[in-house]
Amino acid sequence: MDIRLVKGSDYNAISPLINEWWGGRQMSDMLPKLFFVHFNETSYTAEINGEIVGFLIGFLSQSHSDEAYIHFVGVHPGYRKNNIGKKLYNEFFNVVKENGRNIVRCVTSPVNKVSIAYHIKMGFEIEEGNKEVDGVSVFANYDGPNQDRVLFAKKLD
Amino acid sequence: MDIRLVKGSDYNAISPLINEWWGGRQMSDMLPKLFFVHFNETSYTAEINGEIVGFLIGFLSQSHSDEAYIHFVGVHPGYRKNNIGKKLYNEFFNVVKENGRNIVRCVTSPVNKVSIAYHIKMGFEIEEGNKEVDGVSVFANYDGPNQDRVLFAKKLD
Repeated sequence: MDIRLVKGSDYNAISPLINEWWGGRQMSDMLPKLFFVHFNETSYTAEINGEIVGFLIGFLSQSHSDEAYIHFVGVHPGYRKNNIGKKLYNEFFNVVKENGRNIVRCVTSPVNKVSIAYHIKMGFEIEEGNKEVDGVSVFANYDGPNQDRVLFAKKLD
Repeated sequence: MDIRLVKGSDYNAISPLINEWWGGRQMSDMLPKLFFVHFNETSYTAEINGEIVGFLIGFLSQSHSDEAYIHFVGVHPGYRKNNIGKKLYNEFFNVVKENGRNIVRCVTSPVNKVSIAYHIKMGFEIEEGNKEVDGVSVFANYDGPNQDRVLFAKKLD
C-alpha cells in the first residue's frame, strides 16, 4: 500500500467514491474541492495497485496553534480490516507533530457507532457535551438544527 | 452596522439562516461548524441592532502562502444594496494583507449570475477554465460530477 499526499487531481477520483463508500448517504457536499487545493500537505490518500482505497483530509487549525483537525476519512468498503485507516491517521499524527502541534480533533455523528468505536480505539477521548445519546456524550445541534455531534480529541505524545 | 470576527457561538444563529437566505436551496451542509472554530480570525459577521445581517467565512490558504480563500458569504435578503457584502470583503482583504498575502480566491456556480456579476464588480477576475456556460469560462465538474464552477482570483494592491 502506498500512502502519499493528495493532489488536486485526486478530487475527480475521490468525490464520486464518497456517496458510494458511505452506502448511498449524500456526503459529497461535505467535501468540496477546496480541501484538495488549500490543505493538501496535511491530507493523504492510500493506494493499492494504483487504485485509491482510502483518504484522510485534515488541516492545521488556523485559530488554535497547538491543534489540528481531521475533516473527513474514508476507506473503501472492500478493503476494511487492512489497517488502512490506522496508517492514514498515523501519517496525519506525524505531520501534526512535525508542525509542533499536539492535539488532534475530529467530529462524528452519534448514529455512526462504528466511527465512535474506531476513534476510541485510536486513542481519542470523547469531550463532555450537553446531551447523551445511547450512553455517549454529544453536543446537541452542533452542526446545525438536529445535527448533534460527538466531539473527539487526542493528545499526541 | 458593526462588523466583527465570528465566534463559535454565532454558528447557532447563522446556520439556520443559510437555507433561508439562499431561497430554500439546501446549502447549510456546505458550512459545517469547523469554519467557526478553526478559522475564526479571518471570518466576519455584520450586525445591525444586534441582528446578524451578513457574514463572510474565509481562511488563509495552508498550502499557498501568498493566497487566501473565501468559502462562504451571505447577506440577509432584506438588507441587500447596503454595501454589507462590500464591507465584509474589504475587512477580509485587510486581514489578508496584514498576513502578508496578496491573492484572494473564491468559487461560485455558473447558475449564480448575481454572484458572478458581484465578484467582477469587486475586482475579481475569472480564471480560464475548460468549458463555457452562457459566455462565462468555467471548470467542468470542479466540485464533483455535474458541479461546474466559476473560479475567481483577485490580486490585492
